Amino acid sequence: MAETIFTKILNGEVPCHKVYEDDKVLAFLDIMPLSEGHTLIIPKEPAETIDRLSDDSAAAIGRVLPRIARAVLEETGAKHYNVLQNNGRPAHQAVLHVHFHIIPKREDGSGLGIGWDPGQLDQEKGADLAKRLAARVEKSS
Amino acid sequence: MAETIFTKILNGEVPCHKVYEDDKVLAFLDIMPLSEGHTLIIPKEPAETIDRLSDDSAAAIGRVLPRIARAVLEETGAKHYNVLQNNGRPAHQAVLHVHFHIIPKREDGSGLGIGWDPGQLDQEKGADLAKRLAARVEKSS
Repeated sequence: MAETIFTKILNGEVPCHKVYEDDKVLAFLDIMPLSEGHTLIIPKEPAETIDRLSDDSAAAIGRVLPRIARAVLEETGAKHYNVLQNNGRPAHQAVLHVHFHIIPKREDGSGLGIGWDPGQLDQEKGADLAKRLAARVEKSS
Repeated sequence: MAETIFTKILNGEVPCHKVYEDDKVLAFLDIMPLSEGHTLIIPKEPAETIDRLSDDSAAAIGRVLPRIARAVLEETGAKHYNVLQNNGRPAHQAVLHVHFHIIPKREDGSGLGIGWDPGQLDQEKGADLAKRLAARVEKSS
């Protein structure tokens, strides 16, 4: 994986406003926030996208999400928020090192904008796809 | 927490197209998908929002994200995707039981729509906010 700005932050070459750190995870404020308290959580393990991240690093991020979310809510007074993790530039990933955003959604509209245009799952195709997905997950366990 | 459609799915009262299950987690296809392969991952533990979820359940979801993401990519041929977890109705949460979406972003534009209007973090305010957040995370550890 190519080095990114997050590599430099992890190496201490670039400063950050640190919120949390353990042996697998670092969390810090996004310097281009969508709203006050916009926080990033990244694995220390280098991986561009979460499908390439180890189960242990992904679990370590999951484990701190509730604590960091509570801190953001308590400190900013926000009541609602989105957790977002983008994979690939067409999916809006700007830095090619896994990162989870915690983004408060405020009453003034600041926060993440969401466009949602759902379809309807065909039951037969859904049953078939789920079976194939389950087989793949099982195989990679 | 009030019962939701996910409670009924977890109890087996309502069917789902299951992709994965372990003692803490269930994953299944979204019946109103934004794109083919749109999958939901939920904790068996009842919690409306992730700030109210136990660290263990949140870690268990994190742990399976890479595997399920790989299965979705391999099976649908998608290259890019978003992981999204909404907290609160104003943040676009439709079912009030924690759920992570894995949403392929396709070349035809299907998938999650993202609106992004960032500001610039004031360095002094950022340093102060990060310090207060870090103290809160530390306290709730």
